[in-house]
Amino acid sequence: VGRTEGIDLAVVAGDGIGTEVVEQGLAVLEAALAPSGTKLSTTEFDLGARRWHATGETLTDEDLEKIKGQDAILLGAIGDPSVPSGVLERGLLLKLRFALDHYVNLRPTKLYQGVTSPLADPGEIDFVVVREGTEGPYVGNGGALRVGTPHEIATEVSVNTAFGVERVVRDAFTRASARERKHLTLVHKHNVLVHAGHLWRRTVEAVNAEFPDVTTDYAHVDAATIYLTTNPSRFDVIVTDNLFGDILTDQAAAISGGIGLAASANINPDRTAPSMFEPVHGSAPDIAGQGKADPTATILSVALLLDHLGFAAESARVHDAVAEDLATRGDAVRTTDQVGRDIAARVTE
Amino acid sequence: VGRTEGIDLAVVAGDGIGTEVVEQGLAVLEAALAPSGTKLSTTEFDLGARRWHATGETLTDEDLEKIKGQDAILLGAIGDPSVPSGVLERGLLLKLRFALDHYVNLRPTKLYQGVTSPLADPGEIDFVVVREGTEGPYVGNGGALRVGTPHEIATEVSVNTAFGVERVVRDAFTRASARERKHLTLVHKHNVLVHAGHLWRRTVEAVNAEFPDVTTDYAHVDAATIYLTTNPSRFDVIVTDNLFGDILTDQAAAISGGIGLAASANINPDRTAPSMFEPVHGSAPDIAGQGKADPTATILSVALLLDHLGFAAESARVHDAVAEDLATRGDAVRTTDQVGRDIAARVTE
Ligand SMILES: CC(C)[C@H](C(=O)O)[C@@H](O)C(=O)O
Ligand SMILES: CC(C)[C@H](C(=O)O)[C@@H](O)C(=O)O
Repeated sequence: VGRTEGIDLAVVAGDGIGTEVVEQGLAVLEAALAPSGTKLSTTEFDLGARRWHATGETLTDEDLEKIKGQDAILLGAIGDPSVPSGVLERGLLLKLRFALDHYVNLRPTKLYQGVTSPLADPGEIDFVVVREGTEGPYVGNGGALRVGTPHEIATEVSVNTAFGVERVVRDAFTRASARERKHLTLVHKHNVLVHAGHLWRRTVEAVNAEFPDVTTDYAHVDAATIYLTTNPSRFDVIVTDNLFGDILTDQAAAISGGIGLAASANINPDRTAPSMFEPVHGSAPDIAGQGKADPTATILSVALLLDHLGFAAESARVHDAVAEDLATRGDAVRTTDQVGRDIAARVTE
Repeated sequence: VGRTEGIDLAVVAGDGIGTEVVEQGLAVLEAALAPSGTKLSTTEFDLGARRWHATGETLTDEDLEKIKGQDAILLGAIGDPSVPSGVLERGLLLKLRFALDHYVNLRPTKLYQGVTSPLADPGEIDFVVVREGTEGPYVGNGGALRVGTPHEIATEVSVNTAFGVERVVRDAFTRASARERKHLTLVHKHNVLVHAGHLWRRTVEAVNAEFPDVTTDYAHVDAATIYLTTNPSRFDVIVTDNLFGDILTDQAAAISGGIGLAASANINPDRTAPSMFEPVHGSAPDIAGQGKADPTATILSVALLLDHLGFAAESARVHDAVAEDLATRGDAVRTTDQVGRDIAARVTE
């Protein structure tokens, strides 16, 4: 990837508001790349509820192979109430994260100027959650016996490996070390989930030796929800398991203005496969097609995409344009398109 | 148990501030029972960090048998940094919950008049979480291989049975049905934890047929943290798994004034063993022995204890006394003893 070769981007708009927000994300991406003359080639992948209804397919090997050949993926949202729960999540979204080894699920949380937090006294909120993306209770290891009978038993197995924990912990330390406060908080529940928890804990201690400039502390996941309510400023970088990260990043989004603003990156730091950039929000079928969706989370995800592909200045431009848009947003109601256009205009300015 | 026979109470003050708050809880319990002439016989159990350091014991079979002979348990707090993580949690606190079949872990959340929420616009907060107490990821099923090597693998197995889920779901419906709004929300993550999640979901649907007056809805655990931030009034009764309940009830405590006020009851609804009443907070070793701990959570747990033992009027008196104390609390700083004395005085009035 680079200015001369151009970017091959897989676009998975998906379901509901996915199409609308991705359209704006792409417009902003074009605007950001224009000055450098970098060519953006997009390939759309028809994945999600519509495809599943039509063909019964979630993600074919063929599509997966094609996606693997791209430089990155921009994803809108996957899911619809008409599809049984778990089918698209496990068969498509999580399959992409696992197959492409997205072991760093990065979720920055920032309370921007102009954005109102539901917290009375939010203080400064500016932290990033490094959520593990390929292990934990998300591995799909488990099953059910005697389903539908009074003797049914269902299990879910959280799988954690030294290999998997160490690589994400090292990534989190690297990020913490590059930040001003250089502080890393491990969130887990090692007093109950003793085996997994102690592996995480020992790994953080061990990797800390390589990053003596980073200070660390620990919070049980239950206590972390308290801190996110009473003192979110205490967090700089959080590293945590797949499920705890899922839970905490929704809460983090809520305290910093809502999931309409929450960006995420599913990163393969070894670059053995394309990374994937997506808003934290879902497909919101209740407001789909009405121009009501806020594309900001997708646009901030585009900033993460640019950064990952080495376009640091372009990423900063998008980020600044969003920050300016938010600072002047006020109570004005704009459509999805208008927000996208306004931010793209600021990028171009 | 009854007015004439009296109450045999096991007291496990435990560690840190546990001793201080339990003393006040007992004083209020005495005050509440005095008018009826009910005799309170307490048996103290020396359990927790001190006992473990002295003897290596967490909970002996002998102590457990003695506890089983009591009518109820009042517990302060268990845990100290000097004890390796998991030893007292698994060996004592969770062992009590599991051995005494406390399958309903009841955690009421109410924003009392006079209490400031960290939410800018909390609205009315008055819901109860029915957390499953004997299954899920808390069962201690799992393990680790090749510990300390690069090939370490650690698993944690969440075990869910039709038997276990159905009994707690039925209890939650019973509670919802007795409340004004008669609304039950299932919280899980059935789009990822499909086996366990679908068991919970089907069970809620099935038991709903027995309670046609109760309306139900569903929230993924990540979304639930958003609702607890932006619109906690939507909740009436929440039923959820052991781990999700642990996480959500700390957040619930945070939005309603902090864990200094959060009560809990570990209930065996079949009454085959004594139920256990404890504040949600921990042993807080940093403030132990200084008279700084707020005994309110313990006193509200005493109200739950009285109710469970059939002393409904006495329970209401304690509850009202706490509500009055909170309403007039203001910014005055009082010691643990003073708060206890003030509430006991209102109970006696
Ligand atoms: C849709 C769901 C599978 C997904 C997750 O649980 O990871 C979502 O909640 C997220 O946070 O990206
Ligand atoms: C101390 C710990 C084992 C316990 C739990 O996780 O249940 C506590 O957090 C609670 O909520 O009562």
